[in-house]
Amino acid sequence: MIDEKIRNFDLKHYLSEKRRRIDERLGSFLDCSFPESRLGEAMRYSLMGSGKRLRPILCLAAAEAVGGGENDTVWRAACAIEMIHTYSLVHDDLPAMDDDELRRGKPTCHVRFDEATAILAGDALLTLAFEVLSSGLPAGAADDVCRRIDVIKMIAMAAGCRGMIEGQMRDMAAEGKKIDLNALMALHALKTGALIQTAVACGALLGGGTQAQCGALETYASHIGLAFQVTDDILNVEGDPGQMGKAVGTDVIREKSTYPVLLGLEASRQYAAILVNKALQALEIFDNKARPLTAIAEYVIERKR
Amino acid sequence: MIDEKIRNFDLKHYLSEKRRRIDERLGSFLDCSFPESRLGEAMRYSLMGSGKRLRPILCLAAAEAVGGGENDTVWRAACAIEMIHTYSLVHDDLPAMDDDELRRGKPTCHVRFDEATAILAGDALLTLAFEVLSSGLPAGAADDVCRRIDVIKMIAMAAGCRGMIEGQMRDMAAEGKKIDLNALMALHALKTGALIQTAVACGALLGGGTQAQCGALETYASHIGLAFQVTDDILNVEGDPGQMGKAVGTDVIREKSTYPVLLGLEASRQYAAILVNKALQALEIFDNKARPLTAIAEYVIERKR
Repeated sequence: MIDEKIRNFDLKHYLSEKRRRIDERLGSFLDCSFPESRLGEAMRYSLMGSGKRLRPILCLAAAEAVGGGENDTVWRAACAIEMIHTYSLVHDDLPAMDDDELRRGKPTCHVRFDEATAILAGDALLTLAFEVLSSGLPAGAADDVCRRIDVIKMIAMAAGCRGMIEGQMRDMAAEGKKIDLNALMALHALKTGALIQTAVACGALLGGGTQAQCGALETYASHIGLAFQVTDDILNVEGDPGQMGKAVGTDVIREKSTYPVLLGLEASRQYAAILVNKALQALEIFDNKARPLTAIAEYVIERKR
Repeated sequence: MIDEKIRNFDLKHYLSEKRRRIDERLGSFLDCSFPESRLGEAMRYSLMGSGKRLRPILCLAAAEAVGGGENDTVWRAACAIEMIHTYSLVHDDLPAMDDDELRRGKPTCHVRFDEATAILAGDALLTLAFEVLSSGLPAGAADDVCRRIDVIKMIAMAAGCRGMIEGQMRDMAAEGKKIDLNALMALHALKTGALIQTAVACGALLGGGTQAQCGALETYASHIGLAFQVTDDILNVEGDPGQMGKAVGTDVIREKSTYPVLLGLEASRQYAAILVNKALQALEIFDNKARPLTAIAEYVIERKR
């Protein structure tokens, strides 16, 4: 059944078409800021370019899966989540944090500009996400307003001190220490899982999904999120820096506990495959509108960057 | 007439009572986060303590001035704005920015914790502001939901890349350079004016102010905001570090263009007094419910910290 869904589906075309349209929207949101300022330049430098756009694509694909159209609010949620993901990368790359010099194949924001500008550009992208989420509402659409507030709350919670930011705190605290598999999974559920899960949940909500559909997509998202992280760890060991657009081997240098370290490479690959299978099982209640989500699940572990 | 309004009004009691209640609310919002985590500790350390709470008090006082009660949404807006103000201080104090070691009489966040924690605690306070603004809505209150969305948009715009953050960029760019009075005023309108103005505007909106009242309060706020900054510059020259809770004389060291530098101390004092008078004139359409706002206008230039 799963195979049937995937067959005849051109994921590469789907992803590139979605990326093109996401980039278009992100660019138009940025155009509303000071385009000629150094701050605006640093925001654009970090946000535009060769991102995978996994989170916004998951958001849009989840809305499609439940039969929802591409309404303006889904697009805003998708773009806001990508802005938040990008700001987190800009701040994580700072010298006081991971001190990375390469991201998405380019010098990181603080290398290209300076530290202060990178901090402020990150702050501004985070703030812009909430401006985008609260703007452009058609007058009198009460239902839409309520869903917008729900989406703002979901995104703020996932991105905040009980979600992504706490995950980054734990990630830094774990450097040079041996942590066990449970602690590693909890860390990733916060650091990357929460926002990925929220991307899918926002799409499901805004697409008008039933409770059963939203529940199934939540299961899908939690497995995809973990599989994504396991694959990230594997790519940090055996990935090609040219394709990845960032340095590899950094986890070993930082003495980080990763899935390859705790489980070994082969068992990590198997674990990622199991997670993807579980994600695919959760999609069995959907018809072929969920084809993009099934294909994305495969992509998550097969990707080279 | 103005004097009549101020007479018999105990501003000191009003401010301390409001501060107590603001601190109580801020604390309860923090309790919802991980209280035992280092991140939660750093957020609490920065947010709680001896802040003037000018912005949330202005928000609450503006709601009172237009005859609005203290509803939950006004309190959330007031607290969210204070969280955003605090995060901006935490980030501005970082070594890559103003590199300050003392704030509100205590070591700054990155000194007490570390740089990475300070960056993330700032991010988390900014994010929490939007969680607070989107949470706790009573079911079925459509009007309230619409006003919440408006408030989120107003705050995000004031705090973002066309407001406070752009102001901080310009402030740093102006260090060691001579800028003229117009550029200095534009810088401050962004860096501190936008959020102060939004605090008043949110209070006016959520208190149910008429268009005329909201307009008058906007005029009040823009003059208060500028007077506040002029006084800040004066205090940086002649303030008492013990009372201020932070270093003074730093503007000279950083070769910053300030009002005392551009106008001289005495003319700066006169300018602040003119601004406060203009702010008071804008309040003439209000009855004695605006007494706190009149008193706060006087306080802005008479304060010692």
